[in-house]
Amino acid sequence: MPRGFRCASRNCGLKPTAKDLALFVSETDAAAAALFTRNHFPGAPIILGRETIRGGRLRAIVANSKCSNVATGERGVENARRMAAATATEVGTRPDRVLVSSTGVIGVQLPIETIERGIRGMSKDLQSDPLVGAEGIMTTDTYAKALSANVGEATITWVAKGSGMIEPNMATMLSYIFTDAEIDTTSLQSLLRDSVNVSFNMLSVDTDTSTSDTCAILANGAAGTADMKEFAKTLMAGCTRMTELLARDGEGAEHLIRVIVRDAASESDARRVAKSVVNSPLVKTMVHGADPNVGRLLMAVGKCFDCVIRAESTDAWINGHQVVGKGTRLDFDDNFVRATLRAENIDLEISLGVGSARATAYGCDLSKGYIDENAAYYSS
Amino acid sequence: MPRGFRCASRNCGLKPTAKDLALFVSETDAAAAALFTRNHFPGAPIILGRETIRGGRLRAIVANSKCSNVATGERGVENARRMAAATATEVGTRPDRVLVSSTGVIGVQLPIETIERGIRGMSKDLQSDPLVGAEGIMTTDTYAKALSANVGEATITWVAKGSGMIEPNMATMLSYIFTDAEIDTTSLQSLLRDSVNVSFNMLSVDTDTSTSDTCAILANGAAGTADMKEFAKTLMAGCTRMTELLARDGEGAEHLIRVIVRDAASESDARRVAKSVVNSPLVKTMVHGADPNVGRLLMAVGKCFDCVIRAESTDAWINGHQVVGKGTRLDFDDNFVRATLRAENIDLEISLGVGSARATAYGCDLSKGYIDENAAYYSS
Repeated sequence: MPRGFRCASRNCGLKPTAKDLALFVSETDAAAAALFTRNHFPGAPIILGRETIRGGRLRAIVANSKCSNVATGERGVENARRMAAATATEVGTRPDRVLVSSTGVIGVQLPIETIERGIRGMSKDLQSDPLVGAEGIMTTDTYAKALSANVGEATITWVAKGSGMIEPNMATMLSYIFTDAEIDTTSLQSLLRDSVNVSFNMLSVDTDTSTSDTCAILANGAAGTADMKEFAKTLMAGCTRMTELLARDGEGAEHLIRVIVRDAASESDARRVAKSVVNSPLVKTMVHGADPNVGRLLMAVGKCFDCVIRAESTDAWINGHQVVGKGTRLDFDDNFVRATLRAENIDLEISLGVGSARATAYGCDLSKGYIDENAAYYSS
Repeated sequence: MPRGFRCASRNCGLKPTAKDLALFVSETDAAAAALFTRNHFPGAPIILGRETIRGGRLRAIVANSKCSNVATGERGVENARRMAAATATEVGTRPDRVLVSSTGVIGVQLPIETIERGIRGMSKDLQSDPLVGAEGIMTTDTYAKALSANVGEATITWVAKGSGMIEPNMATMLSYIFTDAEIDTTSLQSLLRDSVNVSFNMLSVDTDTSTSDTCAILANGAAGTADMKEFAKTLMAGCTRMTELLARDGEGAEHLIRVIVRDAASESDARRVAKSVVNSPLVKTMVHGADPNVGRLLMAVGKCFDCVIRAESTDAWINGHQVVGKGTRLDFDDNFVRATLRAENIDLEISLGVGSARATAYGCDLSKGYIDENAAYYSS
């Protein structure tokens, strides 16, 4: 992790044995910005988080998995406040310097005493490997996700979880970014918004927008100022890479699907078409079955009724191999394309031929694993 | 079928042995109206059909399954015209009195000579059981679908196919309605539009809008005039019932899901929320797993960012059992709701509490059967 940041995680008793509590702490107050879900039923931590982030400064993030504290009414918000207060006491700061996240089942009250007990003494475990923090926020993720990159003397570290109920709108499920570069709150806000716009907001595992989406960035300035152009570029690259990791580890996923739409009439059209293709169950199952049923690509492009689309100017490629020309299926080498669909990463590229805008969306295939994980999630 | 209408179907060689060609004929020219897909890549039969229906009169409908004649360029349209011409010769009318439909794989040229050979002599097989016609248009449907109802002396018959790539927009995959009531073309158009609006256009198996959606109605007047109010009511009821049959027989489906949204600020909001819930993979897998994970209902309502939704006024019921009150999960009898989710028909009812508009959407659960059918559809 960047200078002055440390993290810890533990099992506090929400899950039988796996880790269920994570703590991220900055030695000093850090400038901070955050984006939250646009879902109309935000969890209690989101309601509290919107209030907390107005101060523009954070000292710590505390997050539990297993229970999301959503649809829990007044008592839920009260419990989120208690979680912030317990963390403030543990790390020696004010409750309004602590961002709280909860992820897991919706509609169950947080076992707040269990969490308060868990937080106590956690600052003794703080250390500098971001994967340790990432382990505490996993739900159906198959592995802990963290990345780090340097910008001059400064470091940026990303910690995230994803997996299901993922079509973030403003942010992904839980994604925390830490840096020791010195950046003011206002700049952080616009940097975060720009990066999230082309990365987490273009991710969809299953079209379902979580009630807990949170993406926060903390900059504690321990490494001094950094080249802002370089910082912005690295931030965007890291957010995009983390987006790919989350897509690839979508529930039941065996492939990362990237849908690149170019030559669109507007960026908004490019984004909508890319999302439509990456979300189409018939495209997702086509990738899963490694079956070059390219008519489904056209179907998924063509169902964007309100976008500028002309059949006769539409071309498409699967992993660089052209399969559609001027809206018509080309006579391509079926076996070759079938083989290329067995690759882990699948690039579906579509040229709309009506402008110059572009966008990329990130998703995954649809498998029986998704059904298995979600037909019995609550009880498990 | 209504007086003066007959149908036939046969295997003409597109499939190994199953029926793949259907013919519907009226003894006299019938007033006709039709609605087609809004997909930007309409199949050749849609392109031709839009031209044909302008005349407002039809004598016959010819439809093949197995190959949809979509993304087939100029040659595809030429083949659709040849299909209309062969049918006109066979039944003794003009090609512009024949509506052509094709359903099946996208991006493959129609084996037109095979179809022309198949059409020859088909008028000898014409008879009055609508299920015979329905058999000729099945793709992944598990059974042939036809309904009939009386309005005074007149009869209405519905013949349809559905199954996958089903979120019609203007009409469902293929749905033909025949009546011997005497109704002019203009009235037919508005009757059809009103009925489709609350039935086929509220159906979604998998959010994917087909390139071949066609819904046509033919009225040959053989039974004279009918009570129009009664006719409109029966037409809407039959379209709704057929919508339920198509939803229940969605690819891999084991349940019909009806989502009733009421007390919405506008009909548009009610329709969007109902579609959002019926399309949510996490709601669909919840029904599949008979798991009352009601947070997913709230998530799917709440992701309609642009609708008027207030958490504190939202209530929800599963098969008549209230599970959410004022945006919070109620302490309901888990085992009872779990048992009710094992029923074949699942009603999810949501009151938004912000107005008086309502809408119902129709869909099905998401199972491994959907993955099986679609991960290897092209090759099979």
